[in-house]
Amino acid sequence: MKFDRQELKKIKPEQLRPYIRRQEFKDHTVGIAEGYTQANLVILPQRYALDFMVFCQRNPKPCPVLEVTEIGVSKLKYLAQEADLKTDLPQYRVFKNGECVDEPYDISRYWRDDFVGFLLGCSASLDHALVSSNIRVKHMEKMVVPSVYITNIQCAPAGPFKGRLVATLRPIKKNELNRVIQLCSRYPLSHGSPVHFGNPKEIGIDDIKKVNWGNPCEIEADEIPVFWACGVTPQVICLNAKPEIAITHYPGKLFVADQLMAETALIA
Amino acid sequence: MKFDRQELKKIKPEQLRPYIRRQEFKDHTVGIAEGYTQANLVILPQRYALDFMVFCQRNPKPCPVLEVTEIGVSKLKYLAQEADLKTDLPQYRVFKNGECVDEPYDISRYWRDDFVGFLLGCSASLDHALVSSNIRVKHMEKMVVPSVYITNIQCAPAGPFKGRLVATLRPIKKNELNRVIQLCSRYPLSHGSPVHFGNPKEIGIDDIKKVNWGNPCEIEADEIPVFWACGVTPQVICLNAKPEIAITHYPGKLFVADQLMAETALIA
Repeated sequence: MKFDRQELKKIKPEQLRPYIRRQEFKDHTVGIAEGYTQANLVILPQRYALDFMVFCQRNPKPCPVLEVTEIGVSKLKYLAQEADLKTDLPQYRVFKNGECVDEPYDISRYWRDDFVGFLLGCSASLDHALVSSNIRVKHMEKMVVPSVYITNIQCAPAGPFKGRLVATLRPIKKNELNRVIQLCSRYPLSHGSPVHFGNPKEIGIDDIKKVNWGNPCEIEADEIPVFWACGVTPQVICLNAKPEIAITHYPGKLFVADQLMAETALIA
Repeated sequence: MKFDRQELKKIKPEQLRPYIRRQEFKDHTVGIAEGYTQANLVILPQRYALDFMVFCQRNPKPCPVLEVTEIGVSKLKYLAQEADLKTDLPQYRVFKNGECVDEPYDISRYWRDDFVGFLLGCSASLDHALVSSNIRVKHMEKMVVPSVYITNIQCAPAGPFKGRLVATLRPIKKNELNRVIQLCSRYPLSHGSPVHFGNPKEIGIDDIKKVNWGNPCEIEADEIPVFWACGVTPQVICLNAKPEIAITHYPGKLFVADQLMAETALIA
């Protein structure tokens, strides 16, 4: 089945979800269902769940918690009432002892009675807020995944969960940086304000063209590189903790919630 | 030892803590160490900790999480580096199977290797923000605990944790309500914006003079009763869940952190 990405901007999450569930839509979710919250996913066995949730509390910029499922229950209650974590994301990554062993489109065969699902805020609301305020966000124009880097910023550890912050890049016009900080500060559940701007080397990025994920982009003469905490961080953290099993979303292929971005904004 | 409450306004948390530890200061902490964050405390065995943390995530207004301790570790790492949960609050309440069995000034003899401590935001930052903006907060003038009520608002449940929201009352001048909502919205980690204003009966408070805790106060002709989520909520929730053991702060006698209130404010 072929989807027009411009038309997907206008689709409602509840209309999109059946396509995802039937594995007819397996693509990334950038720019889809404009105005609706998107969420990163981390699923862990219960014995890791408390430490992971404390990790999120200590690192709210990369890991803002939107919803945590009941133990063993794959259905959501808050972000979307009828959604099922087993089938309702376009693609997943399954890790065993820190190694990616599968990238399935449905995780029913992996589901366990002790699984706890964490839905974490992503940068979709942020991007939408910027674009809606006439701030140029280049990867949104192309509707592609932005440049993603593993930085040298250490996250605050919790139990076995520790490691470096993953960040996304958005080149911003120098004279718009102040406004950009104000706008994204309204969305703490969508990574909030930047973690760094200016010289990428200061956060361990030696070559801006060498992305760890996503698509490289140009920094123009009137732009400054601005970095935000990224929801891929928990994937890297999972690799480090080597749980016997962990399941995450596939980068760029997120859960699309029924909750509006505006519902998570602070101080309108 | 006798303390002048006006002088206590200016004390630094690190100066106050030794008095608390030696049980020379056992009083409430309202108005103490002006400008510093205060925190409510809930300590639970590990097996309840994930469900409780999910309860907090689902009910951020009564239970904004400031810090969660490592399993079995009574020392804090973030709110105050040298503080110990066993000794550094003026008074505690110990619950066994939902019943209060002790109100000690030191919980060393109760401490267990599986204890997890939750430090939760309280209304101190909120009160300070209001007073600093020339909003009259009556209980702050008298430096007493405000009126506290058990409402009929049901919290979102998580595992065994469920029950009704506890709220504090602050009578606010009608023409200042808008400004009050704006000011307290900046402090989501301090209960944030009100949960109700106007007729107390709409949230199950039939007689405003009958407080569940704290001190009754008058509503004057130009004032409207405004209610905020209260950090006593987790105590009520603990009673309902009947864990074999739970320890909380004594109402009004909170942990005084080294973190400034200004550090937790959103969008200055």
